[in-house]
Amino acid sequence: MENFDFYAPTRMLFGKGKVTALPEQMKPYGTRVLLVYGGGSIKINGIYDTVQSVLTEAGFVLSELSGVTPNPRIDAVRCGVALAWENHVDMVLAVGGGSSVDCAKVIAAGACYEGDPWELVKDPSKITDALPVFTVLTMSATGSEMNPTAVITNPETKEKQGVHSGYLYPKASVLDPTYLYTLPAIQTAAGVADIMSHIFEGYFKKTEDAYVQDKFSEGILKTCIKWGPVALTEPENYSARANIMWAASMALNGLCGCGKAGKWSCHAMGHQLGAYYDITHGISLAIVTPAWMRYILSEETVDKFVDYAINVWGFPRETDKFALANMGIDATEHFFMDCGLPSHLSELGIDDSNFQAMAEAAVPYANLDTQAYVPLHVEDVVNIYRACL
Amino acid sequence: MENFDFYAPTRMLFGKGKVTALPEQMKPYGTRVLLVYGGGSIKINGIYDTVQSVLTEAGFVLSELSGVTPNPRIDAVRCGVALAWENHVDMVLAVGGGSSVDCAKVIAAGACYEGDPWELVKDPSKITDALPVFTVLTMSATGSEMNPTAVITNPETKEKQGVHSGYLYPKASVLDPTYLYTLPAIQTAAGVADIMSHIFEGYFKKTEDAYVQDKFSEGILKTCIKWGPVALTEPENYSARANIMWAASMALNGLCGCGKAGKWSCHAMGHQLGAYYDITHGISLAIVTPAWMRYILSEETVDKFVDYAINVWGFPRETDKFALANMGIDATEHFFMDCGLPSHLSELGIDDSNFQAMAEAAVPYANLDTQAYVPLHVEDVVNIYRACL
Repeated sequence: MENFDFYAPTRMLFGKGKVTALPEQMKPYGTRVLLVYGGGSIKINGIYDTVQSVLTEAGFVLSELSGVTPNPRIDAVRCGVALAWENHVDMVLAVGGGSSVDCAKVIAAGACYEGDPWELVKDPSKITDALPVFTVLTMSATGSEMNPTAVITNPETKEKQGVHSGYLYPKASVLDPTYLYTLPAIQTAAGVADIMSHIFEGYFKKTEDAYVQDKFSEGILKTCIKWGPVALTEPENYSARANIMWAASMALNGLCGCGKAGKWSCHAMGHQLGAYYDITHGISLAIVTPAWMRYILSEETVDKFVDYAINVWGFPRETDKFALANMGIDATEHFFMDCGLPSHLSELGIDDSNFQAMAEAAVPYANLDTQAYVPLHVEDVVNIYRACL
Repeated sequence: MENFDFYAPTRMLFGKGKVTALPEQMKPYGTRVLLVYGGGSIKINGIYDTVQSVLTEAGFVLSELSGVTPNPRIDAVRCGVALAWENHVDMVLAVGGGSSVDCAKVIAAGACYEGDPWELVKDPSKITDALPVFTVLTMSATGSEMNPTAVITNPETKEKQGVHSGYLYPKASVLDPTYLYTLPAIQTAAGVADIMSHIFEGYFKKTEDAYVQDKFSEGILKTCIKWGPVALTEPENYSARANIMWAASMALNGLCGCGKAGKWSCHAMGHQLGAYYDITHGISLAIVTPAWMRYILSEETVDKFVDYAINVWGFPRETDKFALANMGIDATEHFFMDCGLPSHLSELGIDDSNFQAMAEAAVPYANLDTQAYVPLHVEDVVNIYRACL
């Protein structure tokens, strides 16, 4: 096991009605709150009204940034920072999914920085303070509610960039599984794919003796496989929503990836699809992952894929380990398809015209040629994109 | 899944040589440190010298409380509080196992309280502040390094009492697996039994849909079963020590027990053995657990024991579920015996003379008659103790 620091100080307020516990967590930090959210769904499903009434009754004064998009853009961050300054807010509260949370985090840092917030994304060491961030989740996937990471897109430069800073941990996050009941099926499915991808990125790594982490990883994958389809067929199944919601936070709070060396592969490739085509993050991962798995399967990696096939999918141990590995990969692909996710880029109208440029951006983004589980050079990434067509 | 709060803000500094990262974490809190440790083992194995040189070179001034015993006593806490006041310490650093950590926590709270620290143990709501606590682990078992709990014994009143307070979370804990290399085999084994018991207490509960937590629990149990024997036969096997060490912290930081209703059974019974006979905590649990499992096995609980037998021990699914359940229980008992742990109280010279008094104390300690997985009355607890003879 590699040396690591594990630090996940966010207070997780989990369960039905837990939003009422939020004011107590926020009170130490002041009264003026910038509410950050996306489209109008929280106004339709009543979550906006609930949050607003809970907070105003507790004496908080709210200002608002609405309209945060998926793949949140630096423009939205800039607007949020301006609003934070204008209203002298004490803290930022995201109500939404990973996009709103990520946007809120960089607004919180940007409000404590004199320059343009894109500078913070490009160089997180410039983050030396941030307003306290709180979140109320309405979609489960990115794990952003319990980690110090945000991903922001700059459409002008076609960059989709992750930013990490110890100042970006939310102070507290409300996870109410009933808030997921009205989530469209495609978003539920994309969220499950995103959670599973977060696990794959850590599970398939060179470090072989991080056993606790691998067992946790297998547990989260099994959770997605068991409860994801239930959430899709019974959107108001509390157990299904609760397990997927908690799995999402656990998948990316450091728990499953700690103590393992190397960088992520599929997210680097998926992020380029997001930057070029603005497709849903989880969908890009559902398409790229099986192709990546098949591409890297070799004598060196086959044993890990055998573990995956047996421990996650429950296939019986076979004599031919490559057959077993491929059964696990096929099961992954079919699972995503059964969840209603596209399995080919052509289904989204994407052709190969940008593969070279995307690959050239993906490789240095995560040092795929030196630090990936299986090193990937530009031509490898182009080949994987081609396999996704 | 039940509603819950999850909060585990301790920074975990994990790996070989990580003690050098400790000064940076301690610096914000001052310079005067009360070092709390047990017997002389840390002086023999060099950990004492390492910690002292790392801290003094970083400018810290140390005072010391040594001689903390297993089942740490309120007297040691009182001594520590007096030393903390006398030396105007800014923080408390435990170097040892759960006993030193637990003692350090209550010293940290007692140093901020005017009355006798036993009052804080009896009524944790009286804890309204505490000095910052840090830990350097030299034994893995209790998980105290990552939670807000301490267990303190009062020999005068024959009470062994748990105390929980949000003020007791360590700020940072150093987990260096090489510090476990010189641990005696019996302590390694007792530690593994303690870790497994922490999981059992949460795994066998009435809430049935806390799937993520159950998969994490099964993963930690498998970790103990795979790596515990390796640590015993190869005390300097880094992978084994690292996985057991990390499993211990994960077993009792709230991760595996959250979202599940009900109180613990075996610890309530084991604590009485500690209070009456001062036997090692993990040993008491290794003896009590299989007897408890057999006692509560019934038509209502058998399905959970079947899950346990299949998912943890890997037994094939059989037609007779009671046979399968008993295979899991037998495997548990044999595992503890194979680790070199006693399996009967009589091996420790304990007879039935105090069973009634111990049972009368155990039941109200954890409301076993109303809030246990299977309700246990005084006569049930006496029966379980008898089955341990």
